[in-house]
Amino acid sequence: MILVNGAVSDSIPVNDRGLAYGDGVFRTLRAHGGRPLSWPYQYPKLEHDCSALGIPCPPAALLRTEITRVAEGEPECAVKIVVTRGPGQRGYAPPRESQPSRIVMSAPIPAYPDDYAKSGIKATLCSLRLGFQPRLAGIKHLNRLENVLARWEWRDSSVAEGLLLDAEDNVVGGTMTNLFICTNETLATPDLARCGVAGATRDRVLACAAARHIPCRVSSLPLTEVMRADEIFLVNSLIGVWQIRELADRTWAPGTMTQRIRYWLDEESD
Amino acid sequence: MILVNGAVSDSIPVNDRGLAYGDGVFRTLRAHGGRPLSWPYQYPKLEHDCSALGIPCPPAALLRTEITRVAEGEPECAVKIVVTRGPGQRGYAPPRESQPSRIVMSAPIPAYPDDYAKSGIKATLCSLRLGFQPRLAGIKHLNRLENVLARWEWRDSSVAEGLLLDAEDNVVGGTMTNLFICTNETLATPDLARCGVAGATRDRVLACAAARHIPCRVSSLPLTEVMRADEIFLVNSLIGVWQIRELADRTWAPGTMTQRIRYWLDEESD
Repeated sequence: MILVNGAVSDSIPVNDRGLAYGDGVFRTLRAHGGRPLSWPYQYPKLEHDCSALGIPCPPAALLRTEITRVAEGEPECAVKIVVTRGPGQRGYAPPRESQPSRIVMSAPIPAYPDDYAKSGIKATLCSLRLGFQPRLAGIKHLNRLENVLARWEWRDSSVAEGLLLDAEDNVVGGTMTNLFICTNETLATPDLARCGVAGATRDRVLACAAARHIPCRVSSLPLTEVMRADEIFLVNSLIGVWQIRELADRTWAPGTMTQRIRYWLDEESD
Repeated sequence: MILVNGAVSDSIPVNDRGLAYGDGVFRTLRAHGGRPLSWPYQYPKLEHDCSALGIPCPPAALLRTEITRVAEGEPECAVKIVVTRGPGQRGYAPPRESQPSRIVMSAPIPAYPDDYAKSGIKATLCSLRLGFQPRLAGIKHLNRLENVLARWEWRDSSVAEGLLLDAEDNVVGGTMTNLFICTNETLATPDLARCGVAGATRDRVLACAAARHIPCRVSSLPLTEVMRADEIFLVNSLIGVWQIRELADRTWAPGTMTQRIRYWLDEESD
């Protein structure tokens, strides 16, 4: 089911600035029995991203009601929320009083092979390098052509995710995931001040590590450092946690830190 | 009037990748009596941009017919063409067989004050710096949040356009225009290999200068060089040619090169 501004619909006006300029933000999350998981992480991120673009954020209660409507009757499903600046006239200048468009839709959870979570995945290094744009970095906005072009680089279905580097050979994340490495029982994840998307599950991992006194550094992560790590794992709200089993010329055995993080996230999932 | 895939409509499906990811391209042009101006420049640009993103480009004849339909009966109007990768399922991976969406719509020509063309405009320097992304540079794609944020920087209606710099202090263009400078009877325009949008009117100016043996350099243009120029002018298909009269702490008198370029473009407009 799709709700557009609260009404069942499967279309939006052509003059919506979300289409014209990618002028909006989105989030993807899991819902169990109509209840959005990790909502205390998801909504603040949506609110932050709307605010960064100057788009009024729909109230949390309204979105929760709409999530329940689109997800009702499904034991579990994926929910996508899109908030755009709404309709606009020709030209880049945002309207003085924008009337945001709100889209809430449900879809089946993607059917990933079980062994992705159990034994890890094969990943590839994308050749596309993410551009630096501090004004948009971290925001889950609708300008996602870099992700589309990166995802298009491989067709090999044995490759589950592609890693993206910036122009200075730092790893930023996957095309649809955030990345963590573990070296000597210490975590690290890329700083997203210049590019990349800050997912809600990344925040959950950071909170979970902090609560358990596991040090986690947030900084630039050169590819050389990532390749030397004891474990590398990728996270997002739909996949949960995937360890990387194979990347470039290296392989990794299942690691205990990845297992612990997955266990803790599952435990705290609400 | 708006045509979506040839049918009168004012909406597109929510699952269109143009909305989800800005996965598409567009062009804006003038039509006189239903006839698109500078079509021999516009269509190849659309074709090039579609090709750069791997989107099948609608045939020229089909688009011309649709432009005539939306612009019919109007002495003059603006026409916007949007081509997206079309509907898609969840996820960045483009569908194996994409069915592009084609939107052709008309609007009144924006009512700019007459003296913009006659006496020049006041411009501002935007603080947002364009990010480098060689894979998308030059393409008029739907990921336009940088332009939206830059255009949002000023509300002063006496300022007609904002200039965008890259991270290395080069001028790349205006938020909606391409830029040329003239120094000692020689033109120069920013190279757009790392960021910026290559408009059809920029190509027309380059062709027009070449035909008249006026040298035109295409290269990085540091702000310091732009500020020292004898003339600076901005171009796009809707505004034509605007000279900059005032920028930062400098003013310029109307210049002869800008007038000649405007005259030639008008003369060759078809």
